[in-house]
Amino acid sequence: MGLLPEAVERLAEEFSRFPSIGPKTAQRLAFQACRWPSTELLAMAATIGAMAEEVGNCPICFFLSERGELCSICRQSNRDEGLICVVEDPKDVLAIERTGEFRGVYHVLGAALSPLDGIGPSDIHADELVERVRSGQVREVILATDSDVEGEATAGYLVRRLQGQRPQITRLAHGLPVGGELAYADERTVARAFSGRQALAADQT
Amino acid sequence: MGLLPEAVERLAEEFSRFPSIGPKTAQRLAFQACRWPSTELLAMAATIGAMAEEVGNCPICFFLSERGELCSICRQSNRDEGLICVVEDPKDVLAIERTGEFRGVYHVLGAALSPLDGIGPSDIHADELVERVRSGQVREVILATDSDVEGEATAGYLVRRLQGQRPQITRLAHGLPVGGELAYADERTVARAFSGRQALAADQT
Repeated sequence: MGLLPEAVERLAEEFSRFPSIGPKTAQRLAFQACRWPSTELLAMAATIGAMAEEVGNCPICFFLSERGELCSICRQSNRDEGLICVVEDPKDVLAIERTGEFRGVYHVLGAALSPLDGIGPSDIHADELVERVRSGQVREVILATDSDVEGEATAGYLVRRLQGQRPQITRLAHGLPVGGELAYADERTVARAFSGRQALAADQT
Repeated sequence: MGLLPEAVERLAEEFSRFPSIGPKTAQRLAFQACRWPSTELLAMAATIGAMAEEVGNCPICFFLSERGELCSICRQSNRDEGLICVVEDPKDVLAIERTGEFRGVYHVLGAALSPLDGIGPSDIHADELVERVRSGQVREVILATDSDVEGEATAGYLVRRLQGQRPQITRLAHGLPVGGELAYADERTVARAFSGRQALAADQT
């Protein structure tokens, strides 16, 4: 028999379903929630209910959107639809948008290929990307998947799928982080910075 | 204008109200929630709604309880009501119950005195403790507040409040953790272990 009211035990259990929350943290959060005024708890319950009912994926790029609608980016009339940046996760879209440099559109895979986790080509909206590239006026597809094993495998897979189609396929540059010190970079990053080194114009040397 | 659906932004904001969740983690959790099936989100919303409506504090000891009812401990008929253990937080009750050694009842203060945070005597159910001790057949009050500055101040305050009443007032022992190594204990713990040293029977030496 539990010592705590049932709702508290249940909330702790539900918090612990988040991959980043362990059972101890989940219990701490449930205890903290016990101190919230009812109105705030009800507001949070309503928000989570709204998540279930209102949040979906953009039918074009699979970024998060109000259910059944285009996402905030595909709705913008001034985006360049000839330039598609392919990312793994909605978080990546936010990171790229923060730079303010990219005026194209996205394709959010939702995952990277990972046979061990049972994530195959049909789970990453690859067919939809191919179809999008085939049917649209796409000039360039930028592969911005992560540079870990799964991200590289996914990029490689998409290159094969897109072979023979019109657009240029590019991959984000890897190298030393801007403002970082060479001495503190890991060896794979330094190696990539060497292999990807670029010629400077003569007047800059 | 936010790039994300409104419910996602709002959920991140609400997660960040938990003291142990910063804005980055809150956003990560909100993104993770986007992957949950609707049924699980609705179940979580229902649980949080139930927290608002069903969870309250025990009218005797202020431990968490089903609203308007005695807590799971005060309901047990085999607890020794002559022995009250005073703790700061519901979590402390769970920690003590895990030992399986304590058969008395609790008094949950809900906080420790902390003038800087605006927490004074009226915020820690101290009057209710005094009243409980006055009106009942209490033999012993065990002060189990934390051994930090606030916890010690709270214990000192309660000792003064309970002065002149019948029950014996005790404080949990402090010293080296069982199974811990002396060399790794902090100096205040070692000092407490010295000042609280206990005589061993002659045949044990």
